Amino acid sequence: MNFDAIFDAQLQALRDEGNYRVFAELERRCGAFPAARSYIADGPDEVTVWCSNDYLGMGQHPQVIAAMKAAIDDCGAGAGGTRNISGTNHHHLLLEAEIADLHGKEAALLFTSGYVSNWAALSTLGARLPGAVILSDAMNHASMIEGIRHSRARKVIWRHNDPEDLDRRLSELPPEAPKIVAFESVYSMDGDICPMAEIVEVAEAHGAMTYLDEVHAVGLYGPRGGGISEREGLARRITLIEGTLGKAYGVVGGYISGSAALCDFVRSFASGFIFTTALPPAVAAAARVSIAHLKRSGLERARQRAAVRRLRAGLDAHGIPHLDNDSHIVPVMIKDPVKCRMLADILMRDWGIYVQPINYPTVPKGTERLRFTPSPLHGPAEIDRLVEALNALWRQCALSRAVA
Amino acid sequence: MNFDAIFDAQLQALRDEGNYRVFAELERRCGAFPAARSYIADGPDEVTVWCSNDYLGMGQHPQVIAAMKAAIDDCGAGAGGTRNISGTNHHHLLLEAEIADLHGKEAALLFTSGYVSNWAALSTLGARLPGAVILSDAMNHASMIEGIRHSRARKVIWRHNDPEDLDRRLSELPPEAPKIVAFESVYSMDGDICPMAEIVEVAEAHGAMTYLDEVHAVGLYGPRGGGISEREGLARRITLIEGTLGKAYGVVGGYISGSAALCDFVRSFASGFIFTTALPPAVAAAARVSIAHLKRSGLERARQRAAVRRLRAGLDAHGIPHLDNDSHIVPVMIKDPVKCRMLADILMRDWGIYVQPINYPTVPKGTERLRFTPSPLHGPAEIDRLVEALNALWRQCALSRAVA
Repeated sequence: MNFDAIFDAQLQALRDEGNYRVFAELERRCGAFPAARSYIADGPDEVTVWCSNDYLGMGQHPQVIAAMKAAIDDCGAGAGGTRNISGTNHHHLLLEAEIADLHGKEAALLFTSGYVSNWAALSTLGARLPGAVILSDAMNHASMIEGIRHSRARKVIWRHNDPEDLDRRLSELPPEAPKIVAFESVYSMDGDICPMAEIVEVAEAHGAMTYLDEVHAVGLYGPRGGGISEREGLARRITLIEGTLGKAYGVVGGYISGSAALCDFVRSFASGFIFTTALPPAVAAAARVSIAHLKRSGLERARQRAAVRRLRAGLDAHGIPHLDNDSHIVPVMIKDPVKCRMLADILMRDWGIYVQPINYPTVPKGTERLRFTPSPLHGPAEIDRLVEALNALWRQCALSRAVA
Repeated sequence: MNFDAIFDAQLQALRDEGNYRVFAELERRCGAFPAARSYIADGPDEVTVWCSNDYLGMGQHPQVIAAMKAAIDDCGAGAGGTRNISGTNHHHLLLEAEIADLHGKEAALLFTSGYVSNWAALSTLGARLPGAVILSDAMNHASMIEGIRHSRARKVIWRHNDPEDLDRRLSELPPEAPKIVAFESVYSMDGDICPMAEIVEVAEAHGAMTYLDEVHAVGLYGPRGGGISEREGLARRITLIEGTLGKAYGVVGGYISGSAALCDFVRSFASGFIFTTALPPAVAAAARVSIAHLKRSGLERARQRAAVRRLRAGLDAHGIPHLDNDSHIVPVMIKDPVKCRMLADILMRDWGIYVQPINYPTVPKGTERLRFTPSPLHGPAEIDRLVEALNALWRQCALSRAVA
């Protein structure tokens, strides 16, 4: 059997529909974010990154860098084992305590990534709570969808950000079934924010557990960076808060936070937690410093918001259509995979502006977009230059403008 | 609904059967491996780690440490995004080329962990090859089992390390079905090594793809550390080699290596690859230096083998029963979870020797063990002291001896 031929055929289908992905090979320059060296042929040697999820530039923060290097000197490169077998390091415990404090919870549990934390926690909860039903927001992230699928628990999808639909669907379930309402605070591709208070009230009325993904919100919202749940004063009422160390905190890794019993339960039963090498102690040390810094400092958040406002105002002034939302994510809709890539290629080649075209399966087909994430490190000149570039592109390609 | 009560009840059941896990909180001391600071109450402040999967101590290798710190200075702490959206760094590409060269393959693909690489690759292959059947060795790792389960492909389990049973089961399948033979080279808990040539011949005779997990072998076997498949001259005939950067290479992360089409296929379709933040560039840089070093240097492997031989000889001299195998893993069977923990506790408290009791679900119930992994950094005095400690324990607890 010619397996390569099967692979090639499916890859060709991706190419034919414009969804084949080419990764941009870059090298971020620590101390010069958002600038990066580029290894892309036929492009400039240096580019401005406009689509990073290192939302606040914490990946180059001197304290984060120093903590990471000090922990390497102290403990070495890797953890040396799973958490159970020689891999638990003092730095992991310190970080878990820092996260629990961030969310005002009893405990936290680290995972190798945010993807794994969602997948492992939801698959464990769904599989080990007898008769569990998971009520999943229609726009939940792939990691949650895969975790729910893996649990083989009954799944009920409710209309995106619609507490009334959630209420109706909860009402149809047997009262004795354990129910888990799984949703996100900030949805990464549209940048919309959930009506958290209403969702929590509906869940509480039905005795359901709430499972909240805050990966695009931690570090960014709330007075200490505890996410939308902190900003809205709802963290205490959420059963489980899931987050990442790889976006606003600038490092890598994921976590859940909740009651001591909940975290111990997932710790004790989740295959994706148990059977994997622990995060390097240096990653834990860097993430802890990043969280601690953003608990105290609101400067990065304020500067990011100013950059977002300036970009939105510039786009509006030129009629460049972008999705309206209350977050830091600025999606400019293109709605065609081929055109989306073409625009990104021109921005890179002619302007040294790097924004990855977002296509299927990250977003539904027909909703392809350029997704901009202004950071505190994008200055007014860089923002204005992006607007100028988009304006020129819109003229050049005769793209439709928003009506004022 | 009182969810915490449900969690507590299941945790209590674990405690009742002696399978509740307590993680040892340590802090490895870079430059002094296998010594670690201990934060465990009622124990010594410093311990000797005897169960690390940093098999060769590469986690403290000066070149690895230097590469990791240099890449942090150069690129920052994290990757800043998924591989598709701003997270591909030059260091990732260099590492993938280093891995492909290690296994003599066209390409390689990085994952956040070995667990994720198995889970994502097997679930993608099983789900996207129409009518695929996965033939899984009975002792395969949890990450492979979960990947196969997630794929929803038909699964056939064959008797552990038994090519004849594999042949029989392949013969029963429709000739036109795509078949994937999934197995490991070194099985981590018993330390036994598969009869690779026979398995490959059987697979080839049936036109099946071979999927080989070498996580406990890469860096350790073969003249360049390419694993058992390199040592046996079989790498070319294996379709996909999966490995880890978190054991012999001392860092963290996982990978697959194979044809360009195969790696591109998994890259393009695997949810667990696509929707997750890329490994930090510094992790990739450190892993690459570690692989490159172990391609050239056989010193660490030779010293490890000497340590393994000395430990085995010491155990034999005192009749301490251990599983016979051809690998670097020395399992001393206890066969009872409570006794296993008690022995480990005494070793820690009285001798400063840390070995994690291995219990269910890592091994089947009734096969609990102490699993020792001698490294090049365990000197003769440390090995002799471990043997002395075990001999004293055997006397003290009246444990049965092996008959010479």
